[in-house]
Amino acid sequence: VPLVIVGVMGPGEGATERDRENAYQLGRAIAQEGWALITGGRNQGVMDSASRGAKEAGGLTIGILPSADKDGISPFVDVPIVTGMGEARNNINVLSSDVVFACGMGAGTASEVALAVKGRRHVILLDVGDQAAPFFVELDPNRVHVATDVENAVGTARHLLY
Amino acid sequence: VPLVIVGVMGPGEGATERDRENAYQLGRAIAQEGWALITGGRNQGVMDSASRGAKEAGGLTIGILPSADKDGISPFVDVPIVTGMGEARNNINVLSSDVVFACGMGAGTASEVALAVKGRRHVILLDVGDQAAPFFVELDPNRVHVATDVENAVGTARHLLY
Amino acid sequence: VPLVIVGVMGPGEGATERDRENAYQLGRAIAQEGWALITGGRNQGVMDSASRGAKEAGGLTIGILPSADKDGISPFVDVPIVTGMGEARNNINVLSSDVVFACGMGAGTASEVALAVKGRRHVILLDVGDQAAPFFVELDPNRVHVATDVENAVGTARHLLY
Amino acid sequence: VPLVIVGVMGPGEGATERDRENAYQLGRAIAQEGWALITGGRNQGVMDSASRGAKEAGGLTIGILPSADKDGISPFVDVPIVTGMGEARNNINVLSSDVVFACGMGAGTASEVALAVKGRRHVILLDVGDQAAPFFVELDPNRVHVATDVENAVGTARHLLY
Repeated sequence: VPLVIVGVMGPGEGATERDRENAYQLGRAIAQEGWALITGGRNQGVMDSASRGAKEAGGLTIGILPSADKDGISPFVDVPIVTGMGEARNNINVLSSDVVFACGMGAGTASEVALAVKGRRHVILLDVGDQAAPFFVELDPNRVHVATDVENAVGTARHLLY
Repeated sequence: VPLVIVGVMGPGEGATERDRENAYQLGRAIAQEGWALITGGRNQGVMDSASRGAKEAGGLTIGILPSADKDGISPFVDVPIVTGMGEARNNINVLSSDVVFACGMGAGTASEVALAVKGRRHVILLDVGDQAAPFFVELDPNRVHVATDVENAVGTARHLLY
Repeated sequence: VPLVIVGVMGPGEGATERDRENAYQLGRAIAQEGWALITGGRNQGVMDSASRGAKEAGGLTIGILPSADKDGISPFVDVPIVTGMGEARNNINVLSSDVVFACGMGAGTASEVALAVKGRRHVILLDVGDQAAPFFVELDPNRVHVATDVENAVGTARHLLY
Repeated sequence: VPLVIVGVMGPGEGATERDRENAYQLGRAIAQEGWALITGGRNQGVMDSASRGAKEAGGLTIGILPSADKDGISPFVDVPIVTGMGEARNNINVLSSDVVFACGMGAGTASEVALAVKGRRHVILLDVGDQAAPFFVELDPNRVHVATDVENAVGTARHLLY
């Protein structure tokens, strides 16, 4: 039986302090639940902080890298998947996730939320902004959920997975 | 020197009557400008109508298919590119476009607008809805443009390309 | 009805003088038959020579680029498809071809012949070397054909297409 | 620090009894060395047998699936990566491998060996046949190695990795 894999998507270089803190806490919580973490794998922003949180809590971390080698990988990634396909790898990030968290917002993250909806995955939005949340919920009200904080986000994921 | 290639992205099965009419007129205008058209290539919604418009005006039509064969291709596509990579092909749609039109909105279209911004392409939004427009403009105010109608959209594209 | 699209695959930087001459003649013949040409799109070796041949004979040339922009594109490509997915684009090259020519041999070309066989496309081998030819024919004797020269290769393609 | 990841590539439905036995033994040895295993992830042939061997020896197993969901996954895969990109995923299989074993031969496997060479990965060939071995070695004599049996193959990998 495969592991339960949960994605944390969010900005890299453009992440805010709050995005990184949320990502770290999401990573910790994911590991504590016994789930594996999947991110975009780079040593920046939400990807890096979520991976650090999961590693510190003893979890398994998977990184789907856009590059054709491991340059720029987060030091907290256990399993680097080297795609060499740039942003097209965003579709793999979400298809491989049993549930997707979006933590903060940016162009890459927006593409991941949209691709997750297209691929019929559940997405939980955390601090994505006042314009993004209603827009994505309207795309698929049954699969896009808005969380109030990290604890609420993880509770929603737990509810969706079991 | 390669052809100028302009993308028209929009819903397939979920397209409204208005989306299809806009797409048809965009396709016609693109061909009349001497540009080649690129779409997602299927025989549905905006992809199909834009391709029909461009063909009827004597243009060249390219379709980036998600499937591994030509099943479900629009009969108005001259150049089918068979990717076999599902929605990950959306990144190719926009990277291959010198300018992208988004005509209507849906999950696939949202991913294309976001991927276009990520890939630093200009995007012109037409009838994408009151929530999508400000959200995407905020992602990149310099590259995301809101058009009032087909004529205005084509004028904006002309301005960006020359 | 989509155009008939014929692929010419072969080495880039590693192409021999003979590979480039064969590619040029194949490109010319493809255009003269009324077929569109598809290649890997770069300004090197077989891709470049085939595109030049097809352009000089008035044909339409498509290039499936590995890069995320048009840097390094052959000046003889009309329709650049920008994939940003590196060598994974080789699968698109062959899936989009109604028939594939392999002109010379190298690691990238070998991957394209193998992916063509996997995707059930017909492949015509020209000057691929004494080890490659029997190996690939054995992979699929019904779909892998060995040509003696350009004229024979084009005749085989004509036979397969009609 | 990421895990050492070793790929085992080989035929699915077309695998021989011997291919499956070799794959099983390779999987066991990989786990015993403390390496993670990566395969194409399906419940067929070499992918399935290698994953079973690695699981039975307590290893971690990664599967890069061609499909857009987990249908047809090997029950011995811990980490399913869902690509939805068909055979283009073969490039990810090899780019993500620190060393690649080819165990048996077929069209998909041939594409993986060729893509590995193109991506400058070391490949160790085991029972690939009398035509494939010299052909691939000639493509890159420094990176393509021929093994005499499973033990020799694993020894070569150990030597390359440390």
